Amino acid sequence: MDLRTRAAELDASDPLRETRDLFVPAGGGDDVVTAYLDGNSLGRPLRATAQRLDDLVRRDWGTRLIRSWDERWMELPTRLGDRLGEVCLGAAAGQTMVADSTTVLLYKLLRAAVAADPERDEIVLDSENFPTDRYVAEGIAAETGARLVWVEPAPEEGVTPEQVAAVVGPRTAVVLVSQVAYKSAWLADLPGITRVAHDAGALVLWDLCHSAGVVPVDLDEHEVDLAVGCSYKYLNGGPGAPAFAYVARRHQGRLRQPIQGWMGHARVFEMGPGYEAGTGMRSWISGTPPVLGMVGIEDTVDLVERVGLDAIRSKAAALGDFVVDVVDARLAAHGVRVVSPRDAQQRGGHVTIAHPRSREIYQQLWSEGVVPDFREPDGIRLGLAPLSTSYAEVAHALVRIEELLSC
Amino acid sequence: MDLRTRAAELDASDPLRETRDLFVPAGGGDDVVTAYLDGNSLGRPLRATAQRLDDLVRRDWGTRLIRSWDERWMELPTRLGDRLGEVCLGAAAGQTMVADSTTVLLYKLLRAAVAADPERDEIVLDSENFPTDRYVAEGIAAETGARLVWVEPAPEEGVTPEQVAAVVGPRTAVVLVSQVAYKSAWLADLPGITRVAHDAGALVLWDLCHSAGVVPVDLDEHEVDLAVGCSYKYLNGGPGAPAFAYVARRHQGRLRQPIQGWMGHARVFEMGPGYEAGTGMRSWISGTPPVLGMVGIEDTVDLVERVGLDAIRSKAAALGDFVVDVVDARLAAHGVRVVSPRDAQQRGGHVTIAHPRSREIYQQLWSEGVVPDFREPDGIRLGLAPLSTSYAEVAHALVRIEELLSC
Repeated sequence: MDLRTRAAELDASDPLRETRDLFVPAGGGDDVVTAYLDGNSLGRPLRATAQRLDDLVRRDWGTRLIRSWDERWMELPTRLGDRLGEVCLGAAAGQTMVADSTTVLLYKLLRAAVAADPERDEIVLDSENFPTDRYVAEGIAAETGARLVWVEPAPEEGVTPEQVAAVVGPRTAVVLVSQVAYKSAWLADLPGITRVAHDAGALVLWDLCHSAGVVPVDLDEHEVDLAVGCSYKYLNGGPGAPAFAYVARRHQGRLRQPIQGWMGHARVFEMGPGYEAGTGMRSWISGTPPVLGMVGIEDTVDLVERVGLDAIRSKAAALGDFVVDVVDARLAAHGVRVVSPRDAQQRGGHVTIAHPRSREIYQQLWSEGVVPDFREPDGIRLGLAPLSTSYAEVAHALVRIEELLSC
Repeated sequence: MDLRTRAAELDASDPLRETRDLFVPAGGGDDVVTAYLDGNSLGRPLRATAQRLDDLVRRDWGTRLIRSWDERWMELPTRLGDRLGEVCLGAAAGQTMVADSTTVLLYKLLRAAVAADPERDEIVLDSENFPTDRYVAEGIAAETGARLVWVEPAPEEGVTPEQVAAVVGPRTAVVLVSQVAYKSAWLADLPGITRVAHDAGALVLWDLCHSAGVVPVDLDEHEVDLAVGCSYKYLNGGPGAPAFAYVARRHQGRLRQPIQGWMGHARVFEMGPGYEAGTGMRSWISGTPPVLGMVGIEDTVDLVERVGLDAIRSKAAALGDFVVDVVDARLAAHGVRVVSPRDAQQRGGHVTIAHPRSREIYQQLWSEGVVPDFREPDGIRLGLAPLSTSYAEVAHALVRIEELLSC
């Protein structure tokens, strides 16, 4: 069967086929976008978000003015955190908040974890972790004297419980791992690695940037200690939208973050002489939270709840399997390799393929409105955002790659 | 002359009378706002900003998608920083960036300043500084062993060069002062305090939250070392819009901030194994910058440039003098005191008045759409944002206060 026909059939029978139309159409005017495959870098805005942001600017900000802080914004970081935790993270209320950037939240949580026990001064992390995780850890090691203990995953894989078990010990303060590896999409064994860390008496800090909103996460069930993640990928918060942090309730009184600000104070508007940390997730907030960046997250969490995270995960798996099948059948002959796990159970929401000509092909694709991502040195990363990505888009991108390689 | 008539005449002859109409009208539908006097807590959105935000969501985010990072967003924090520096801060290009919150930027800069010289371990700050400045400094003192040296300004004033001179010395790392005190509006002697700090070999870190966009600041001319400020007051960036940081060029290679993230790296998308700080202000950025919050700042900076910061400063002074005159003539008899400096040269962009019944009066005012701020214990803070505040609004608020006190 012709690939485009097959894709059309898959789209027609896709249980999530109607959610695509909820997004602002990609491309517009003369700006043709025939396939957007980078929703794992920047998720698309929902139409509802565009409308609500305009309403927020004109009404909540423009006419209610400062009163909106009392009426809704002060509690937004924790209220949205609770919703996000409930719908996407398996986290009971009171353990998640939305603020800052992923980098800043990583800094706060990792600093807190490193300071938790003076006998423990090692941070375990892996070389395939996202750069900012590694850079934050490097900086903290330099300033606190903590030692970085590196795990080196096998090529094109991700970190395993066995690898972590081999390096954790009585000096391990915290294990810092991404649940979904940003390059390979390797889905780490969250329960297994968490258990290994705990068996060594260490904390675990999960980076959920590439899993929140596409892979079900059960933070409470697996007794995760700490987690951070970003909201502008599958959660469609928009460019530079705030990140989220999860701190398990049992650690909230015990761990302390370093950036003491007025918004984390127990009584924000008393403005008294000394800092007194607020209770719960309030104390993990530092400055004034970025309100505009929260609208898209709210809308996406509502949508995820409505269609169900399991349906989203199923479509991510099916889209990924579709890529793997097509690469095997048509692109492998041109030297394209699948770099991501072939087993959907072992893979997050994107598939990375590799070819020596990837950079050139990626540039050509962009020029014609086919938008995947490029990752050094030779990877084309196909982001498969289940709420907005169609099989037709994926098929079109793969057909174009095949045609370009045939030149 | 009747107060409202006098206000109408002042509005008619106001050189900035036409800028008010550039803002989204306060109040809307049934939501009556007769006087918005809190533009120094949350500045109002420009109509242009509302339109441009909608365009950004639908076009740059919604249709250009990830490509907008390459096309405009990656350089936005430093490009907007340069514009802000040039128009509002007296800072040549390459020394200002926009990102994070004021609290997080205070943390970064203060940590860098404290680490600059191991012989210097004292932070000088004043008890009238904004709470988050004090809390951040407290936190840094606790984690680094630095000592806080407090200056206590006279009641209803702010810190003076003489007070700073009395406490700085060979162990002073940095002097942290707000240029405009958040409660009293006391305008600190920026050149004088900077000189005193430098004479002692210390750095100075200015908090410009209540001055940026309303008080001309000459950072380069006075050889200021470091500055931070917020953008959601006179710069109309919107709720939780990102803050800005200034690091004098001579310190950029020497001082290091603690939160090493991917967006501060010398080559962001190489994603290599080790952190290498970018040059200039790039290295002071940590995570992905909040793009939506920058639109309002851009528009306001353009407007400030067009009408001139001196004209804005003049109107702030005139509005403040108007408040002082009316309080003296009509409210003093009811026990209202002017808490801010009476001399406009000594005062920022707001005027705080005090009365034992302030809290009750403030609540009544809010209920009828007259919106000043309340500050513990008994202050009503009248924010006078020159681009959007009319004399008529000020007169209406003062008339209502008089009427309420006459009950």
